[in-house]
Amino acid sequence: MPGPYTLADIATRLGGRVAGNPDVLISQVGSLEHAQPDQIAFLSNPRYRARLAGTRAGAVIVGASAETLTQLPRLVADNPYAAFARVSLLFNPPEAITPGIEPSAIVDARAHVDPSAWIGPGAVVEAGARVGARASIGAGSHVGRHAGVGDDCRLFPSVVIYHGCTLGARCVLHSGVVIGADGFGIAQDAGRWLKIPQIGAVRIGDDVEIGANTTIDRGAIDDTVIDDGVKLDNQIQIGHNCHVGAHTAMAGCVAVAGSARIGAHCTIGAAAVILGHLSIADHVHVSAGTVISRSIRKAGTYTGMFPFDDNASWARNTAHVRHLDELAARIRALEKKLGGRSDG
Amino acid sequence: MPGPYTLADIATRLGGRVAGNPDVLISQVGSLEHAQPDQIAFLSNPRYRARLAGTRAGAVIVGASAETLTQLPRLVADNPYAAFARVSLLFNPPEAITPGIEPSAIVDARAHVDPSAWIGPGAVVEAGARVGARASIGAGSHVGRHAGVGDDCRLFPSVVIYHGCTLGARCVLHSGVVIGADGFGIAQDAGRWLKIPQIGAVRIGDDVEIGANTTIDRGAIDDTVIDDGVKLDNQIQIGHNCHVGAHTAMAGCVAVAGSARIGAHCTIGAAAVILGHLSIADHVHVSAGTVISRSIRKAGTYTGMFPFDDNASWARNTAHVRHLDELAARIRALEKKLGGRSDG
Amino acid sequence: MPGPYTLADIATRLGGRVAGNPDVLISQVGSLEHAQPDQIAFLSNPRYRARLAGTRAGAVIVGASAETLTQLPRLVADNPYAAFARVSLLFNPPEAITPGIEPSAIVDARAHVDPSAWIGPGAVVEAGARVGARASIGAGSHVGRHAGVGDDCRLFPSVVIYHGCTLGARCVLHSGVVIGADGFGIAQDAGRWLKIPQIGAVRIGDDVEIGANTTIDRGAIDDTVIDDGVKLDNQIQIGHNCHVGAHTAMAGCVAVAGSARIGAHCTIGAAAVILGHLSIADHVHVSAGTVISRSIRKAGTYTGMFPFDDNASWARNTAHVRHLDELAARIRALEKKLGGRSDG
Repeated sequence: MPGPYTLADIATRLGGRVAGNPDVLISQVGSLEHAQPDQIAFLSNPRYRARLAGTRAGAVIVGASAETLTQLPRLVADNPYAAFARVSLLFNPPEAITPGIEPSAIVDARAHVDPSAWIGPGAVVEAGARVGARASIGAGSHVGRHAGVGDDCRLFPSVVIYHGCTLGARCVLHSGVVIGADGFGIAQDAGRWLKIPQIGAVRIGDDVEIGANTTIDRGAIDDTVIDDGVKLDNQIQIGHNCHVGAHTAMAGCVAVAGSARIGAHCTIGAAAVILGHLSIADHVHVSAGTVISRSIRKAGTYTGMFPFDDNASWARNTAHVRHLDELAARIRALEKKLGGRSDG
Repeated sequence: MPGPYTLADIATRLGGRVAGNPDVLISQVGSLEHAQPDQIAFLSNPRYRARLAGTRAGAVIVGASAETLTQLPRLVADNPYAAFARVSLLFNPPEAITPGIEPSAIVDARAHVDPSAWIGPGAVVEAGARVGARASIGAGSHVGRHAGVGDDCRLFPSVVIYHGCTLGARCVLHSGVVIGADGFGIAQDAGRWLKIPQIGAVRIGDDVEIGANTTIDRGAIDDTVIDDGVKLDNQIQIGHNCHVGAHTAMAGCVAVAGSARIGAHCTIGAAAVILGHLSIADHVHVSAGTVISRSIRKAGTYTGMFPFDDNASWARNTAHVRHLDELAARIRALEKKLGGRSDG
Repeated sequence: MPGPYTLADIATRLGGRVAGNPDVLISQVGSLEHAQPDQIAFLSNPRYRARLAGTRAGAVIVGASAETLTQLPRLVADNPYAAFARVSLLFNPPEAITPGIEPSAIVDARAHVDPSAWIGPGAVVEAGARVGARASIGAGSHVGRHAGVGDDCRLFPSVVIYHGCTLGARCVLHSGVVIGADGFGIAQDAGRWLKIPQIGAVRIGDDVEIGANTTIDRGAIDDTVIDDGVKLDNQIQIGHNCHVGAHTAMAGCVAVAGSARIGAHCTIGAAAVILGHLSIADHVHVSAGTVISRSIRKAGTYTGMFPFDDNASWARNTAHVRHLDELAARIRALEKKLGGRSDG
């Protein structure tokens, strides 16, 4: 583990301004609730300011507006959450790998594995595949024919990359991720389904992180594309021929149907559903549990969460949903009787 | 790769009528946007007809109604999407396998593996299991005790078939599929849960395709059954004792709770939820994002998607959902004051 | 297989009262529809009483209120479903394992594997990991550095436990489960995302069962915690730093966002979504398809399922959802015209 560092050292290395004792020695990050005196915590959401009072942390990272809330040694930052990310990375750098191919790995003689890469036990690298410098392929993972894994990528155990799919540099893929399975392309033919061969691939940019058990399907004809810096949480499904723009982030369990085109710098909340063949502009934020059923042309926040209630209230109120058209007609009739609308 | 073929050749082999130059030589399918001059594209949805103008494709597959929209060599078909499927399959046949058992595979001496099958690296085939002719078991996949994989099935890497579960012929299972894990059978007993052993299995028919990370649970007592020709996209969950009728297709992330009985020739949209212990008739179409909470006796299309809006409008409108019963009462009161309903 | 037992024997071993012939010999459980004469079925839901008439079962388990519905030999129990669980477990005990390490398993010399445990083919147990007595690690599963698997745990094939995560005793993890992947911790920094190292772990109690392809993320700083007796169905996602209270059960496809705190003895219906940073009291029941968007302080049942309808009715009614605020204003205007509200 790196460190310990004084608070002053940390500020010098990573930026930010020190308030209070600059010499406190820090060896790890911690939460406000459980930090030890040699740990630094953070407060990014003022909602949790009450936790400052009881913390045993040796120092805290705060924004300027929270600077006076505590007398603890502080690192004052414009963006305290980003500052915390940097401090945590200082103390917890990505693990270095030991280059080599484990004896139980199965690497085709026609694969190109950089000598600085690591291929884990039982992993398979097929003919024509390429594994870049310092990349690590977790135990039992699979890199298909002519697939490409860029420099410094990290695949955790049990990741599958189908043939021809490519990852840029510094991607992180968690266990159970499947890249490049066939898209759901089927054509009705006299009551039966004909499979449409899925001959596109998946192209993933640099610095993409993909959570456990997320799946990204290969294109039907052209490729499915994930741009640089995209962050996908667990159990997300991206259909064939989607395009996800740079630096877009999606929370867990999002479903994106085929041929959706999602802009850059978007955020998609947990379990949202994006239907197929539509476009979403840059800088769109979709709330959790929302079904996006048509294109969104304008940046902004969009929501379609149905409100929950105690079960009895829900049943009483929701019964009217299936009669809203009738209710509206009754309002119109009342208005007519009274000489027309007078609400606006 | 098969081909190239002239357009006339293709029509002779697969049906359809040629309009324009029959001698254009085609070597692959392509999309209207990116096809090369030796590729054939298709137009099945008139909504995309503008793309015809700019295409560089050497030929296109169209329906009769779109025949005159282009002067390019055309294959005119009753069902252009199905025709496209056949043409793509002509140029992209399923890969032939090389029979054999990879040295790192672990095949029990009491398993029955057809000599024409392929068992991939690290795959496990347990005692009493049966792998049919020309079937392929991907790297790291698992075929449990007394499980059965039919002729010409293809399991991609990291598929798990639990003991006793069976696949018919020509099934395709993508990576991360789990067939036959225990159903969610638990009984309350004084504040604790008792597990109910799940002693049924999963029986899957012929020509079933199952997408990446989809799970189908074994039955509690009797079997979970998936009929012939069913097509399941990625990340679908099918609970124990469900019955999915022939040629039904489900899009990604559908959840089907236990003991649901879904008819034949249904389509279930992305992320729909089918609750347990209910029946859905044949030829029912469920829209994406819809929760089916009671049985459906009649063919047709059913929807329950909550509409999204910009966040401010959503908040303003949705606040009333929890007061619909009161709004309805206020309408009734107004009607009473004015001498009764007069809307219909 | 244990047994057969007479009905009297079963009652003596497991409790319950016999009505009818106590000497009928039972060798397995069965469903009312398909049971054979040497099998015992159960009726726990009066809704299915019609099935009693046609059953060929040799005996049935019923509640006192259903005792007179049949003349078949009966085991009368206070909680017939729990009694059925016990009877099924009598006939279907968990399979005993054969201790040992399969030759193709890769067990680090610094791992601690109890001699009574079983490590399956191709499984990996890393340095510092601990596998308890009679535990079984399925083929291709992965137990990371310093992870712990308690006594009598069963991991089916292709389970991944990341470094430092621990399971109590008697846990069952189905195929595709991923424990301890990085939580979704990212900080915005000038249009890019900074990853926050996830240095917490996952701590899972005793008697927890986790369904196929479910994922539980490791904590950002402190641990994600799953208490004793929790039962999770398939394809559930639990975000970082969640706490799930003892004996809570969740149906398939539930999504729980980060830092949610769910009480004990809760049930969460299929495909429900629990947003992050909120608390749910003990004994809360969330219906299927419901999005929980704020804390719940009081035990009870909560629902937010949007009703489905035939597509035309849905379209007609749902169009008004985006105009509810206007409808409410029109009702107010009408009331004003008529001299104020008169509904209650």
